[in-house]
Amino acid sequence: MTARRQRGGRPRDSRVDDKILRTTRELIDEVGYPALTVDQIAARAGVGKAAIYRRYASKAELAFAATMYDQQPPPLAGTGSLHGDLLSLVRAFHIRMAAPAARQLAPALISEIAVNPELETRFQDTFLAAEQAAFAEIIEQAVARGELAGTVDPAMAHLLLLGSLASALYIIKLPVDDAMVTDLVTAAAAGITALADRRHSDPARANEPR
Amino acid sequence: MTARRQRGGRPRDSRVDDKILRTTRELIDEVGYPALTVDQIAARAGVGKAAIYRRYASKAELAFAATMYDQQPPPLAGTGSLHGDLLSLVRAFHIRMAAPAARQLAPALISEIAVNPELETRFQDTFLAAEQAAFAEIIEQAVARGELAGTVDPAMAHLLLLGSLASALYIIKLPVDDAMVTDLVTAAAAGITALADRRHSDPARANEPR
Repeated sequence: MTARRQRGGRPRDSRVDDKILRTTRELIDEVGYPALTVDQIAARAGVGKAAIYRRYASKAELAFAATMYDQQPPPLAGTGSLHGDLLSLVRAFHIRMAAPAARQLAPALISEIAVNPELETRFQDTFLAAEQAAFAEIIEQAVARGELAGTVDPAMAHLLLLGSLASALYIIKLPVDDAMVTDLVTAAAAGITALADRRHSDPARANEPR
Repeated sequence: MTARRQRGGRPRDSRVDDKILRTTRELIDEVGYPALTVDQIAARAGVGKAAIYRRYASKAELAFAATMYDQQPPPLAGTGSLHGDLLSLVRAFHIRMAAPAARQLAPALISEIAVNPELETRFQDTFLAAEQAAFAEIIEQAVARGELAGTVDPAMAHLLLLGSLASALYIIKLPVDDAMVTDLVTAAAAGITALADRRHSDPARANEPR
């Protein structure tokens, strides 16, 4: 998996890469995502628009690369409990996901991903895969501690927490505060425990992937 | 709350309304949402584009009105259990939400709502409010049966189930089958029960709204 696609096969100039991404972040902070234009970015970064479009097919893809692509999930909190580890992780994601730039970008990115298979693949293979891996690690440790009766699909844990949170912030526009994040984690931890118990107590389903 | 906005204050012609909405549904089925144009709708419905734009500010808003706005949640299943009632409701929503037209429209609608406060209000006051009311009814009956120790914010139940499902279908693009819907309901029912128990066992929080 290469870090970023290089269109046209030319050797990339990482100083130009960095300048484009840094300028994009600056302009999102200054003018907001909706008002952002590729012309502005090219002018301020001192590069041609062609240099940008060789790297990114659209404004949404460029903004995704500049603001979200390289983000790694926070390290495992290691609180010693499923609830504590999930709460720490989801609080960290909530801060990122509720940031003004993320709130502006996410709805545009959702519609762009729906019509741009290449961006969808990049979103799946990098951003989502890293998020789901963080949940896999938390579940694995809860199983190792004996806190969960068996494993649970990390994609389900991810969906119950970050899927819900994305809907709350970007679709339903609920006012999400820390009390709500805590309730979401309490509910999801109970839900994950119920799924683990059910798998464990029903041998016929124990080998199913989910 | 009026059924649909009437721009410009002229008395509306409900035959024109119906024709526009019916033609929109037909064309979404035939050509898909991305390829749909207001020109096509006007031509086939035999109305001017102005008649359409007096009623709807955008293609997304028109498609929302034609396909989602008037949908009512299915009636309460009355299975006698929280899990059964939730499963029946979420299965019905899954069929609607996973339909090809909904998959095409939803991502575009999410980005349109983010920049169109009037559409957001309409989406909140009609579509979402009806969905959340269906969860409120299920929770109320579970409390009345003594199955839940106390009430739980219906918006949280809605988020755990339909919020997750919307993310799975429209953002994360998970392959959602009936086994996954059932797992989601099992997890959410356990989560709702945990939230109800916590409220009930902690009098200091019993009067909090969530």
